[in-house]
Amino acid sequence: MTNLWIAIPDSCLIESQTILDKSYKISQISRSCSIFCVKKIFIYHDNSTKAEKIDKKIMRTILEYLDTPPYLRKKIYPKMWILKHAGILPPIKSPHHKALIDIKNIKNEIRFGFVVKQNDSLYVDVGLQELIKYKGTQLGKKVLVKISYNGQLLAEDVAKEELDGYWGYDVKFADSLSALLENTNCEILMTSVEGRQFTKHVDNLMGNLKLSKNLLVVFGGPKFGLKKILEFENKKISQNHYFLNMFPNQGTQTVRLEEAILGTLSIVNNYLHT
Amino acid sequence: MTNLWIAIPDSCLIESQTILDKSYKISQISRSCSIFCVKKIFIYHDNSTKAEKIDKKIMRTILEYLDTPPYLRKKIYPKMWILKHAGILPPIKSPHHKALIDIKNIKNEIRFGFVVKQNDSLYVDVGLQELIKYKGTQLGKKVLVKISYNGQLLAEDVAKEELDGYWGYDVKFADSLSALLENTNCEILMTSVEGRQFTKHVDNLMGNLKLSKNLLVVFGGPKFGLKKILEFENKKISQNHYFLNMFPNQGTQTVRLEEAILGTLSIVNNYLHT
Repeated sequence: MTNLWIAIPDSCLIESQTILDKSYKISQISRSCSIFCVKKIFIYHDNSTKAEKIDKKIMRTILEYLDTPPYLRKKIYPKMWILKHAGILPPIKSPHHKALIDIKNIKNEIRFGFVVKQNDSLYVDVGLQELIKYKGTQLGKKVLVKISYNGQLLAEDVAKEELDGYWGYDVKFADSLSALLENTNCEILMTSVEGRQFTKHVDNLMGNLKLSKNLLVVFGGPKFGLKKILEFENKKISQNHYFLNMFPNQGTQTVRLEEAILGTLSIVNNYLHT
Repeated sequence: MTNLWIAIPDSCLIESQTILDKSYKISQISRSCSIFCVKKIFIYHDNSTKAEKIDKKIMRTILEYLDTPPYLRKKIYPKMWILKHAGILPPIKSPHHKALIDIKNIKNEIRFGFVVKQNDSLYVDVGLQELIKYKGTQLGKKVLVKISYNGQLLAEDVAKEELDGYWGYDVKFADSLSALLENTNCEILMTSVEGRQFTKHVDNLMGNLKLSKNLLVVFGGPKFGLKKILEFENKKISQNHYFLNMFPNQGTQTVRLEEAILGTLSIVNNYLHT
């Protein structure tokens, strides 16, 4: 199973004027990542374009909010203006967005929860009728826990990597595109309208993915493509990376970032699951 | 060159509550069709789901509005509530959305225009400084014209089919899904989460497309998939059609219609242009 990651620039939102517009755009990115089980979203600093600093925070907050199971959202996120429109965004319904079930029926289960303190003991709120005793240290954090029953219910930390299936995405920042590309252990697909034909190189890429477990798909910004963004870092597209055009013969002048993400992941997903 | 068509149900908008929501959804569909040079959009009546009648009109109006070159929009569309939010939707920038150029530089050119009457003669407004004499009969209509210079500029009707390149899409209604499928001369790709694996059948489909020039990609509704929609018409999925799942191993419970369109067309486009 390949781990799918994407990288997007922190200049993503420069064309969106209002927090509503920005929310919609991020919501589309979140849905695409959830549909195709993307495990990491890297937001890299785009030196070519002056974006508002707050946009990074907006991106991270809304992406993480939407990945959070609905039963935890109100507990983790206080009222904040960034999430003003989060309520009207389409639901994600990832597998880890679990429904309320009767606590009596729980024997072994994995759930996201939020760690709280009561009477000097730590508990985790996993969206059920009662809090569950927590054997861990992450007070005030969102945690992924394994709940087991041994006379009483007990929750302990578990890492996504140890589990099968899809458990949502993590959002990470990178200081520059080249730093990200150099320090990440994966096959790299750089998407660009200037790139070579995808279908001619995909077999090669898929062959390499049998050795490397991770695929990072990189997207350019609303203003400049990946070539230009790297130029601003005095770097070039590396021969080791796949610099490919995912949208041959495109009919519109541009493909928007949120469209490029959904389209590219749709294409790649079919190759990863043949 | 394959002609790409899509079919979507008239129940498309049932989950969108406001005209703003509906506008955004239609805008995404319009952009997808424009990116992938879709020539026809069929809106078929979905018997399985009770949609508001006005939604059909909303879909058609906004789709056609967005396909219309910006220079003609105000001339063709009066102020109407359906287009209340059309101004804030992302631009399409199709090749036929041409820029203002100096009329002196025009010798031979194809443009969309709007036919008006002045001093008993017909002229076409093609978004330039002056009206152009029109040799045709479609007063008050949006027309595609070939402009040529022979002492003076003269515009005459031309059909998209006679031209190379992409000239936008046409929107058509169909009374039912089965009527559409039976009466349309094309290869048919029915998209469904219940469908068979796309990658296993695509070579066969592409082979057939060498004979048939047209590919119709059909999408189900927000409530029911294509199988169910056909059941409501007492029909089944035909063995002659490709009933395929474009999103293997999807991470979310559902893929929304606007996402399915963009994703599916992204995939198909790469096969059509290899």
